[in-house]
Amino acid sequence: MSILTPREGESAHVPLEPVAANGLLDRRALLGRGIALAGAMSTGVGTSLTSAAAEPLADDPWSLEQGATTPPLQTPSRFEKNVVRTLSNPKGEPRNQHARTPHHLLNGTITPNSLHFSICHSGLPDIDPDKHRLVIHGLVKQPMVYTLEALARYPMVSRMAFVECGGNSAPMFSNEPIQATAQALHGLVSCAEWTGVKLSTLLDETGIDPKAKWFIAEGADSLALSRSVPVKKALDDAMIALYQNGERIMPGNGYPMRLLLPGYEGNMNVKYLRRIKLVEEPAFSFYEGRTYSQILPDGKAYRFYFLQEVKSFITHPSFGHTLKGPGYYEISGVAYSGTGRIAKVMVSADGGKSWGQTALQEPVPSKAFTRFRMPWRWDGQPVTLQSRAWDEAGNVQPTRSEFVAARGETKKPPNVLGFPNQHYNSITSWAIDAKGEIKHVYA
Amino acid sequence: MSILTPREGESAHVPLEPVAANGLLDRRALLGRGIALAGAMSTGVGTSLTSAAAEPLADDPWSLEQGATTPPLQTPSRFEKNVVRTLSNPKGEPRNQHARTPHHLLNGTITPNSLHFSICHSGLPDIDPDKHRLVIHGLVKQPMVYTLEALARYPMVSRMAFVECGGNSAPMFSNEPIQATAQALHGLVSCAEWTGVKLSTLLDETGIDPKAKWFIAEGADSLALSRSVPVKKALDDAMIALYQNGERIMPGNGYPMRLLLPGYEGNMNVKYLRRIKLVEEPAFSFYEGRTYSQILPDGKAYRFYFLQEVKSFITHPSFGHTLKGPGYYEISGVAYSGTGRIAKVMVSADGGKSWGQTALQEPVPSKAFTRFRMPWRWDGQPVTLQSRAWDEAGNVQPTRSEFVAARGETKKPPNVLGFPNQHYNSITSWAIDAKGEIKHVYA
Repeated sequence: MSILTPREGESAHVPLEPVAANGLLDRRALLGRGIALAGAMSTGVGTSLTSAAAEPLADDPWSLEQGATTPPLQTPSRFEKNVVRTLSNPKGEPRNQHARTPHHLLNGTITPNSLHFSICHSGLPDIDPDKHRLVIHGLVKQPMVYTLEALARYPMVSRMAFVECGGNSAPMFSNEPIQATAQALHGLVSCAEWTGVKLSTLLDETGIDPKAKWFIAEGADSLALSRSVPVKKALDDAMIALYQNGERIMPGNGYPMRLLLPGYEGNMNVKYLRRIKLVEEPAFSFYEGRTYSQILPDGKAYRFYFLQEVKSFITHPSFGHTLKGPGYYEISGVAYSGTGRIAKVMVSADGGKSWGQTALQEPVPSKAFTRFRMPWRWDGQPVTLQSRAWDEAGNVQPTRSEFVAARGETKKPPNVLGFPNQHYNSITSWAIDAKGEIKHVYA
Repeated sequence: MSILTPREGESAHVPLEPVAANGLLDRRALLGRGIALAGAMSTGVGTSLTSAAAEPLADDPWSLEQGATTPPLQTPSRFEKNVVRTLSNPKGEPRNQHARTPHHLLNGTITPNSLHFSICHSGLPDIDPDKHRLVIHGLVKQPMVYTLEALARYPMVSRMAFVECGGNSAPMFSNEPIQATAQALHGLVSCAEWTGVKLSTLLDETGIDPKAKWFIAEGADSLALSRSVPVKKALDDAMIALYQNGERIMPGNGYPMRLLLPGYEGNMNVKYLRRIKLVEEPAFSFYEGRTYSQILPDGKAYRFYFLQEVKSFITHPSFGHTLKGPGYYEISGVAYSGTGRIAKVMVSADGGKSWGQTALQEPVPSKAFTRFRMPWRWDGQPVTLQSRAWDEAGNVQPTRSEFVAARGETKKPPNVLGFPNQHYNSITSWAIDAKGEIKHVYA
């Protein structure tokens, strides 16, 4: 056992001993200076160097020539060409297209705009922002129409928020674990800073007829995709989003404006938003009557089930990575809840028998990604890594057995109508063998 | 005077009366529901609609056809083609190239990676990340060499941080106000979420010889750009940054790794970092001995002057925009301080005679952009808008007269050696005439 020497401003006696089986270490070792961790790493992560070898450094070819010209819009290095969204229907045949975020290749809490997931049902509409209009009508006192230029004059807010497709993680309903990356399994969720006008600000201007209990949001895509949302959400945190991570919204994410309903099913965050109609009853539109009305094992259906519940998954290490021998590693991943802030994330290295608490990257935002990190010393033996999240309302990510009992699984391929494929929020397990190779397992 | 009707959970009696001259309103009107603001906007921002006109909506051409195919990396709409970095030396002749962030076209607090400012002195090196190495040597107990793969195993942290060139805002030293956008004046500062390994973590592994007071950071670009940094900063918040807004660092920002020194002059945040050498005395390298040794009017020089001091500027409205008639507008901009968090931003609409306090977008991060917002009702008369920021340590952005007295101005073009062009952090003033046209003025 190794003990941190206390320093000014630090807690003394942070132990480096395991807090759970198979080498999970006390998260407090990540706080302040890492004296204790330095000891853990000296088992061979970095490489010792004879001092003489560094003076002078050998020059690589790129250090010997003038580099490339700076472009107006910079793009990633050519060595990062594999860091892309994976596409369903890549030729754009007239049906939906999915583009999934490569979580296993990213770090931090923000999804860059180029890599934010998208699902389009009738392609990317080529909308002229100067001609686009947002209409608010129906059960209001004064119907209004807004140009983008007019909306720019209203009070704006910025916030971090995840958006997740109700069908994200659909492959997890398979009764055999599908061997695939976090991108393939969970790539239909992303997180960005959204800036725009709160819907409540506009409804204060139009006024609301007391009979209005719902609003129907409709997009300007050729499907005119529409969803019904309770007025209560409009008066809470719904936003007409105009900017995504500082710049105008991406074409796949709703340019020039989208409805943002923090924590609610992605499909309800209507893109290319052109109309909000206040009504007494929901519309029972295509997507809410069909795709997102999941039939449950007890015969009931998930009709108007909006919330994306508390969830987490490990991105590092995960399927597609290989561990290079025993020693120190950081386990990290993302956690989020449609209810509010993440309160706690626990990690297990023995398939759920013992758990250690992770460090959460601060600030912890509401209804947005929180990165969790866990110090780990791998002894080279087989382990099974899992993460499990709690939110501030006390909701906990269910175990797989709890989840399957309540929600079912299937031998049929997911994504077939009538088979369960919605709102998966249970645990993901990565089994690492003695060679450091990683498989997706159910544990 | 209009008074908010109190609601559950809201402060009552938020007045919509001005808090300073020329229509600046109480920032508390932005909190909670915007009943009072709705009154202010009904002076004609949005457009009333006869309810019948919305049923059915007329379809625009893009609503009548299958849209475009989803790409692996999404890019902005073709209608946003003007939202780009502006380049100096666009043909990439063998000298430095600047690329400036278009602040007047962005909103929120994050600079998207494609638009993060960059300055490269010998082009963008084409670095193979698998061959790149970081060496830490000099006055350490155990010199070490790290591959990118090894660094990925160390404990990481994520944080928002601005990076600002010491020469940002150089045009503000001109004795006549240059008519230019916030991009041209202040485009050499940006803000991102950076993820990487704290330098202190690596120095805990190498150990530090007590004689070491400085470290020299050196890049793998063909200049081998190097700067000297106090060891104290290494033990505080210096980071070996590996990710920028979630993805690998952009080529213009230091791919595959850079030194991040939150709050310190941009040039010191050495890109393409290949070496850290601990030493007793600073190196007096080219950039610290020449470019960033500003000579002051009193004959002293800004040698080893690291801090980017408290600063703010208004981005909306600003030069390049035109106000479309009287009525409600939001004034907003960015504030930041190399010392810590922003405590307060005041806005004036009468050239600094009277001031009103703005609302700060939360959470307010340390050494990162904070977006400020101010409700404003323009009566159509000429006004001069200014912003002024305070940080949590009590530092205040100087007035222009204070700044010029201490730091000088020049009739010569800026960027000439020996003339003042560094560390401008005074106030920017935008004069709006009765037509809504905006000029840069000194006020």
